Amino acid sequence: MKPNFSLRLRVFNLNCWGIPYLSKQRADRIKRLGDFLNRESFDLALLEEVWSEQDFQFLRQKLLPAYPAAHYFRSGIIGSGLCVFSKHPIQEFTQHVFTLNGYPYMIHHGDWFCGKAVGLLVLRLGGLVLNAYVTHLHAEYNRQKDIYLAHRVAQAWELAQFIHHTSKKADVVLLCGDLNLHPKDLGCRLLKEWTGLQDAYLETRDFKGPEEGCTMVPQNCYVNRQELEQFPLGIRIDYVLYKAVSGLYISCKTLRTTTGHEPHSGSPLSDHEALMATLYVRHSPPQHNPSPTHGPAERSPLISVLREAWTELDQGMAQGRWWATIAGYVIVLGLLLLALLCALAAGGEIREVAVLLWTPSVGLVLGAGAFYLFHVQEAKGLCRARAELQHVLGRAREAQDLGPESQPAGLLGQQEGDKAEEQ
Amino acid sequence: MKPNFSLRLRVFNLNCWGIPYLSKQRADRIKRLGDFLNRESFDLALLEEVWSEQDFQFLRQKLLPAYPAAHYFRSGIIGSGLCVFSKHPIQEFTQHVFTLNGYPYMIHHGDWFCGKAVGLLVLRLGGLVLNAYVTHLHAEYNRQKDIYLAHRVAQAWELAQFIHHTSKKADVVLLCGDLNLHPKDLGCRLLKEWTGLQDAYLETRDFKGPEEGCTMVPQNCYVNRQELEQFPLGIRIDYVLYKAVSGLYISCKTLRTTTGHEPHSGSPLSDHEALMATLYVRHSPPQHNPSPTHGPAERSPLISVLREAWTELDQGMAQGRWWATIAGYVIVLGLLLLALLCALAAGGEIREVAVLLWTPSVGLVLGAGAFYLFHVQEAKGLCRARAELQHVLGRAREAQDLGPESQPAGLLGQQEGDKAEEQ
Repeated sequence: MKPNFSLRLRVFNLNCWGIPYLSKQRADRIKRLGDFLNRESFDLALLEEVWSEQDFQFLRQKLLPAYPAAHYFRSGIIGSGLCVFSKHPIQEFTQHVFTLNGYPYMIHHGDWFCGKAVGLLVLRLGGLVLNAYVTHLHAEYNRQKDIYLAHRVAQAWELAQFIHHTSKKADVVLLCGDLNLHPKDLGCRLLKEWTGLQDAYLETRDFKGPEEGCTMVPQNCYVNRQELEQFPLGIRIDYVLYKAVSGLYISCKTLRTTTGHEPHSGSPLSDHEALMATLYVRHSPPQHNPSPTHGPAERSPLISVLREAWTELDQGMAQGRWWATIAGYVIVLGLLLLALLCALAAGGEIREVAVLLWTPSVGLVLGAGAFYLFHVQEAKGLCRARAELQHVLGRAREAQDLGPESQPAGLLGQQEGDKAEEQ
Repeated sequence: MKPNFSLRLRVFNLNCWGIPYLSKQRADRIKRLGDFLNRESFDLALLEEVWSEQDFQFLRQKLLPAYPAAHYFRSGIIGSGLCVFSKHPIQEFTQHVFTLNGYPYMIHHGDWFCGKAVGLLVLRLGGLVLNAYVTHLHAEYNRQKDIYLAHRVAQAWELAQFIHHTSKKADVVLLCGDLNLHPKDLGCRLLKEWTGLQDAYLETRDFKGPEEGCTMVPQNCYVNRQELEQFPLGIRIDYVLYKAVSGLYISCKTLRTTTGHEPHSGSPLSDHEALMATLYVRHSPPQHNPSPTHGPAERSPLISVLREAWTELDQGMAQGRWWATIAGYVIVLGLLLLALLCALAAGGEIREVAVLLWTPSVGLVLGAGAFYLFHVQEAKGLCRARAELQHVLGRAREAQDLGPESQPAGLLGQQEGDKAEEQ
């Protein structure tokens, strides 16, 4: 590799809002997206909410000349909605489905049925290994009373852990996706702190797009304005995050975000805005070292964010166990009710009523049984994430006590993952 | 690190058969296991089927002085049953729960409720990074007509992929566990071929234990002899597998397997036999380069085993889709039946019979609905594994066509994962 080596990477990310039968003008938007991607010829296009595999296959055919490599990440009952199109050959791919992803009985929200996941692509570009991740976390339906908060924090942690453990030999790490997290939200801070990923919007000196980098804006005709009532400028929940490892520098030269409409046709491609980043990977620091121009990067220390996440997961765990206990009581009551109904039916007293009540009672016991099992599994999942987090917290505290010289290599990220003697 | 550097690693593996209320003499066996591990003082003890967290906590207390680090891997409803005890500090840990793990309606087999997984520990020993994995795959209940075969192959593939993607910067990789796979079984060959892991039993020159290295033997008083009818010597389904990366050599100096009883007390520790391996990691090849002494290592080429696994997953997928279709028909029939019953009950004809049939009909529709969703998700999971496998197969074929010089680095494993130019 030459010393003045420089790799340019043009990346596209969009949550496509591709829900069959529900999303407006889906077919037209998917078609226009294909035209747009063909016209722009990015290195990588990472898409979320492509819920219909037919839409993926349509795009695959349409994009084949410009993006010969593509992959659709299948998971859960509906799917993860994630897919990628690449100008360069994909060397390897795999995925990790999040352990926790909402509640099956919240059918109207539907996240549980999707199998939300993180997809990984390994590419070799100009002699470098690029690990590109695409993800979509659980949606936020009520910011004031968010019953999915613990699940989203657990997902952010699993995402961070998946990146941490699978990217140890990568030269460049790229994460795109709809995190359903505002920049200052716990999950977002946790992800950035544990992986060391940088936020393209905060790092670039050349940003063009809505104010504060919002990716859901009221100007977009598909956006439910009521949902944005508290945020007149919109919200930023879609991200391009990246890092390079020792000896390499990555910078975001430009970041463009659509502003409620696609630049060519004028109509929006989705209810989210698309992100288009031009990244440069070099062996030397960029001449104009990008500095935060859109407000300071939110970089609370690792220990504080880990502690905050621990508390959130712990509360979620207690809640899960509480629901499991309640379900346990309901099962016992339901069984008693069934026994009573049997006795009444056998005795001939109010027989018809007893028989009529049989169905809801059986339903109650079975429903409570499923509810119990689900929340036991939820508590176990949160407990698992809490244990991993607690271990990292313990090591981070030890490292702090010992001073920066003795900081364990794992905690310094892979940039410094050299063969240090055992701690 | 000195040039004559040598790291000795003593490893213990046991499927503990620790099912509360069902496994015989569980408390006594767990106590004796604790005594044994304390006496032997291994570097790492990796255990499976520790289903009760109380058993883990008991062992943790008992082993604290000799094994200060420990972790219990929580997952699913019951748990993964996996835990580890380590003489050395654990730097990092995480886990991956297998996407497919049997059927929830096969309650008597129970695997679905366990959340079978692979656990990963990262340790630093003598300046080396050791990635130690512990796992337990889906049980085999009927070898002649194995309805779980596709799931076990998918698990073996996910396990191989998890190791492949998380161990790229490890110096030494160790995998212990109950694979529920015989050495020549498809899943076992797939795992070994894709990860490059070597089998301690096949590699060591100093093995002491039952003939053919069996880890479930008829001499063990807890073993159901009927299950071993076709295998008079027993079966080998528990493994110690390892590999070292470029510049390092790993060899298995000795491998000991219990022979139906624990060496000290004479009573078995479990229905499985324990594996005790002494491994050496060096910078130069071992003087007496171990060669297979227990029959040739089963090393069919990667392409052939990938093709075989592809076919198995494809058949499993077709089966899953078939079940989903059947369930779809049952839902339609059930709904028609419900409508008919409503009409009969409203009309006053055979009203009591109609009301009585209401419960089983609702149950039928709900049960078929759950069955449908489960098998849709199963087919998606198998499709995902098949797609990953197909991609690797395609690249392996390309590499074969181009000759060994052009073989993609990813396919040569991490030993040769140098920064080759993009293929």
